[in-house]
Amino acid sequence: MSAVKRIAVLTSGGDSQGMNAAVRAVVRSALFHGLEVFGVQRGYAGLLKDDLFPMDLRSVGDIIQRGGTILQTARCKEFMTLEGQQRGAEVLRSRGIDGLVVIGGEGSYQGAYKLSKLGIKTMGLPGTIDNDIPFTDFTIGFDTAVSIVVDAVNKLRDTMTSHERASVVEVMGRHSGDIALYAGLASGAETIIVPEVPYDIDAIAARMHDNFKAGKRHSIVIVAEGAASGNDIAEAITARSGIEPRVTVLGHIQRGGSPTHNDRILASRLGDFAVRKLMEGDSSKGCGIVSGELVATDIETVVSTKKPFNMDLYNLALRLSQ
Amino acid sequence: MSAVKRIAVLTSGGDSQGMNAAVRAVVRSALFHGLEVFGVQRGYAGLLKDDLFPMDLRSVGDIIQRGGTILQTARCKEFMTLEGQQRGAEVLRSRGIDGLVVIGGEGSYQGAYKLSKLGIKTMGLPGTIDNDIPFTDFTIGFDTAVSIVVDAVNKLRDTMTSHERASVVEVMGRHSGDIALYAGLASGAETIIVPEVPYDIDAIAARMHDNFKAGKRHSIVIVAEGAASGNDIAEAITARSGIEPRVTVLGHIQRGGSPTHNDRILASRLGDFAVRKLMEGDSSKGCGIVSGELVATDIETVVSTKKPFNMDLYNLALRLSQ
Amino acid sequence: MSAVKRIAVLTSGGDSQGMNAAVRAVVRSALFHGLEVFGVQRGYAGLLKDDLFPMDLRSVGDIIQRGGTILQTARCKEFMTLEGQQRGAEVLRSRGIDGLVVIGGEGSYQGAYKLSKLGIKTMGLPGTIDNDIPFTDFTIGFDTAVSIVVDAVNKLRDTMTSHERASVVEVMGRHSGDIALYAGLASGAETIIVPEVPYDIDAIAARMHDNFKAGKRHSIVIVAEGAASGNDIAEAITARSGIEPRVTVLGHIQRGGSPTHNDRILASRLGDFAVRKLMEGDSSKGCGIVSGELVATDIETVVSTKKPFNMDLYNLALRLSQ
Amino acid sequence: MSAVKRIAVLTSGGDSQGMNAAVRAVVRSALFHGLEVFGVQRGYAGLLKDDLFPMDLRSVGDIIQRGGTILQTARCKEFMTLEGQQRGAEVLRSRGIDGLVVIGGEGSYQGAYKLSKLGIKTMGLPGTIDNDIPFTDFTIGFDTAVSIVVDAVNKLRDTMTSHERASVVEVMGRHSGDIALYAGLASGAETIIVPEVPYDIDAIAARMHDNFKAGKRHSIVIVAEGAASGNDIAEAITARSGIEPRVTVLGHIQRGGSPTHNDRILASRLGDFAVRKLMEGDSSKGCGIVSGELVATDIETVVSTKKPFNMDLYNLALRLSQ
Repeated sequence: MSAVKRIAVLTSGGDSQGMNAAVRAVVRSALFHGLEVFGVQRGYAGLLKDDLFPMDLRSVGDIIQRGGTILQTARCKEFMTLEGQQRGAEVLRSRGIDGLVVIGGEGSYQGAYKLSKLGIKTMGLPGTIDNDIPFTDFTIGFDTAVSIVVDAVNKLRDTMTSHERASVVEVMGRHSGDIALYAGLASGAETIIVPEVPYDIDAIAARMHDNFKAGKRHSIVIVAEGAASGNDIAEAITARSGIEPRVTVLGHIQRGGSPTHNDRILASRLGDFAVRKLMEGDSSKGCGIVSGELVATDIETVVSTKKPFNMDLYNLALRLSQ
Repeated sequence: MSAVKRIAVLTSGGDSQGMNAAVRAVVRSALFHGLEVFGVQRGYAGLLKDDLFPMDLRSVGDIIQRGGTILQTARCKEFMTLEGQQRGAEVLRSRGIDGLVVIGGEGSYQGAYKLSKLGIKTMGLPGTIDNDIPFTDFTIGFDTAVSIVVDAVNKLRDTMTSHERASVVEVMGRHSGDIALYAGLASGAETIIVPEVPYDIDAIAARMHDNFKAGKRHSIVIVAEGAASGNDIAEAITARSGIEPRVTVLGHIQRGGSPTHNDRILASRLGDFAVRKLMEGDSSKGCGIVSGELVATDIETVVSTKKPFNMDLYNLALRLSQ
Repeated sequence: MSAVKRIAVLTSGGDSQGMNAAVRAVVRSALFHGLEVFGVQRGYAGLLKDDLFPMDLRSVGDIIQRGGTILQTARCKEFMTLEGQQRGAEVLRSRGIDGLVVIGGEGSYQGAYKLSKLGIKTMGLPGTIDNDIPFTDFTIGFDTAVSIVVDAVNKLRDTMTSHERASVVEVMGRHSGDIALYAGLASGAETIIVPEVPYDIDAIAARMHDNFKAGKRHSIVIVAEGAASGNDIAEAITARSGIEPRVTVLGHIQRGGSPTHNDRILASRLGDFAVRKLMEGDSSKGCGIVSGELVATDIETVVSTKKPFNMDLYNLALRLSQ
Repeated sequence: MSAVKRIAVLTSGGDSQGMNAAVRAVVRSALFHGLEVFGVQRGYAGLLKDDLFPMDLRSVGDIIQRGGTILQTARCKEFMTLEGQQRGAEVLRSRGIDGLVVIGGEGSYQGAYKLSKLGIKTMGLPGTIDNDIPFTDFTIGFDTAVSIVVDAVNKLRDTMTSHERASVVEVMGRHSGDIALYAGLASGAETIIVPEVPYDIDAIAARMHDNFKAGKRHSIVIVAEGAASGNDIAEAITARSGIEPRVTVLGHIQRGGSPTHNDRILASRLGDFAVRKLMEGDSSKGCGIVSGELVATDIETVVSTKKPFNMDLYNLALRLSQ
């Protein structure tokens, strides 16, 4: 016997690639298990306006490969108040909805936590490109974002090699350096600057200078926006070495594009898992994959824990980019 | 103190994307640790011809993003004989090489095992798109191959939707259905046919028929070459349902293209790990990543074990492709 | 004063990338000029079933980048009869529609011609990947199809270089070798086999043999399906030279994917042009771009003329692929 | 009888995709016609240092698909002086080189013109992504640059739709708005800002405001760097409408990546044409393609003419992006 009969799903916060695949998995898994499912338009803002609609198999046809989210997202200040949260719980209850899957980042998780206090069973799915949510090795969208950065660096490399140039690429990641780390390791960047590790701009400039003298034909610095701006890093390098790196700020294209197969698979696994957890009566959990295993962790723990930075990968990147 | 002073690296068997990233990691990690490194041209065939050359930092510059292998590969019957193997060990010894990293599939691993019996320390890295080597969750090249299949299915989906059609896509995988499984799950294929699971062509045809009647606008079957040919499946469906699926045989394009960031990172981690294992005196091991951890397993065990098929993912794919 | 007040648009025959961009251009240009527009579902089949719906600015929002056609296509035997055509003209007249834009290949043009005889003003837009419609340098979809083939050959090249191999790639083009020609020239294929030029398989095999002996590391043959099958060519080469080329049959993926900017621009220009021609009172014309200029040619002339093959490009390809 | 016996080829100025395809065409066409060919490293700078090397068929193997230029480019102040130019001509003469093909932008053309005054037969090929060289419809690299911008806008569109947002994309083009124009038309951008057409920021902001009120879910502004900076446009829109567009500055990734088939074909045709023109005794000409025909125009005329802007396409873009 399932602990929930009718559930809803919403996407919230910044969108990320694979959110649609997650919505699809929630809907199809729920239907497979005999539940009813509703979609909420525009996150918590839509919830407060009772902007819900029933979803069937076809509602999520042909969306697994689409970027963005068919449910749209929006910011919602009102939902940060107790009153807003109570109104949200009421809306769900008035429709007989007893379970909710929230796909988004930490702010979205907080909302799910609040609703669970008000009697709604909730599950959080990590939908953000930043990979900054703990208790999951990867967030939905991260793999695609890294692939976009790596593709951009591939392009830069061509033109830099022709000119013997340096490039600074600023990537997303306010609190997490993971996009910079993974993209930097994968693209053979000589320097990776992340919020989690202090950097020595003098050493960076000196190394770049030495490399060019030793015959290296290009040099790539990848910097997470949370550590410094690309322009600042470029200026600091110029001041110290005379080298004038080109700056690329990739911006929101990192959030777009068709999700990679990894993001689609991750989203599919997590969406299905969240439904099954709700059916088991679980609530207020953040779902994730750790070492290949599906896990559900108390949202309170998730939002109060800082995700550890992978120093092994960081050191490997240094070792291999000589 | 390192157990090896001078090592060599070769790629063998069918090539796969990320082999260059693995070669780069072996070379740079070795140099970083103070070893000398040689490259062997064309796998075991080149080894027997003493076709080796010293590699430095620049030898592997700008290759992390390249498909194929700069060391090339070739088949070599002679090396299957004891005489051939003894000749190979002699070549290495005559150059003072005491360690060898072999990047390839199971046949390549066998060669590494034989050389280890003759006194050369060896490490195997799983380089094959098929993901059919056990004791590693993923092989180098698999992620890229899946991404190519998924990209092809994305394209097919566009044109099928316009015509209300069915497609059968034949993908690589002689003994392993993993490419079909991962690509099928990620692209929302209605049917996935793999060597590991018996299939019921009557049920497949009937389901396709019912889906079209229920308004589904396209239907995708992904079949691993090891289970059946795409043409045979299409003909069997036509015979049973009158539906005439289009057949696509992706062939060797699945082995090409720039490696994904995941394959580059996997190759980088494994290449570095293999060098460190050789330095520790280890030998005749297949390197892999299991649940995120680097592991080294006796090659004898690796080649005598059948990789288990992931039935959880298979069932998830069925559940979500209704 | 416009010669038409209310027009319809349909897509017919095999779909091609850029059809959506053409539909968008027809709709938006018509609305811009104060006309009403209807969409016809599933080509002539939908026309006979009176499956039409009014279109506004939003109907074609966010489709310029989509493969396939939102109007869908279908075969329709009934429309090949005079009765069917009369029924089609009646449907249009009963809705007060006096102009029709047909996007498709030669079969679709024939239908437009027939309707024009029955008093409906018609315009044909060349929507087919084959580039086999005369009086236009390029058809809508051709540029994207070539880009897909070239991308596939890029991938093959990687893996062939690692193995010193030959590849035969079979591409679409029943009566036209243009996809083979453009993709072959752009990817540096050594051999291009097209329906328009007789080929000498002995010479091809001999040249391939000589090239390998001279140190060339790979050899690519691109063959249009209208000239020969990839498998037949490969077998003939093996029989003559012992070389065993790998065969890739790209199939319907050549019809999918997001249209290139060139196809979108071509479709936009032609869609807008067709509307303006209808407004001027013109009818039964095939629209095209010749040497950069928009032209409208009698459909009777279009369907009775064989598009000339570009021997200059063919000879250039030979000259440069030594 | 050929007017030249031994020619050289160099790439100069900013690199562009397809330069390698042009180098390949020059080399292979020259060899095909029985000439000798030398490559010059790093443009005019390398010429002054006598940094030349003989090229054969294999020198240009496997480069048609590569971004950048294997000959590299560099700025060279010395070559702007008469002394430098004389030294350059001397280097060529001392090696018996009587013809030179220069691939680059207007600055590069000036150099070719100067050398022609000093007795070297020269041909210029338009290698720049900006499409700002007259007497050719397209420059080598332009098609690829547009494709990169369009791909980026595709990605932005996904994420904007989820959030109902506006985006400003700054693209390259100091004196020419062609990248903005073609990419804007192809991606359905609502606003295209180019140096050639004055823009009314009040009207732009008002239209954006109205569109959002009318239910449009996203709005894209593409601005050529020569007209304004993306940041300035975004701030001006915010000041007038309260809408806060996201800014993306694509930067040098527009110059990288594998060239499209169109750039490869254009480069192949022009490279071959330049060689044939040199053989005919022609000199100091800029080669181009106008309405599909190969043409050679006096470099003096080329560098003193402003390329006309395509107002028809610009107006079409406005008409279709309602």
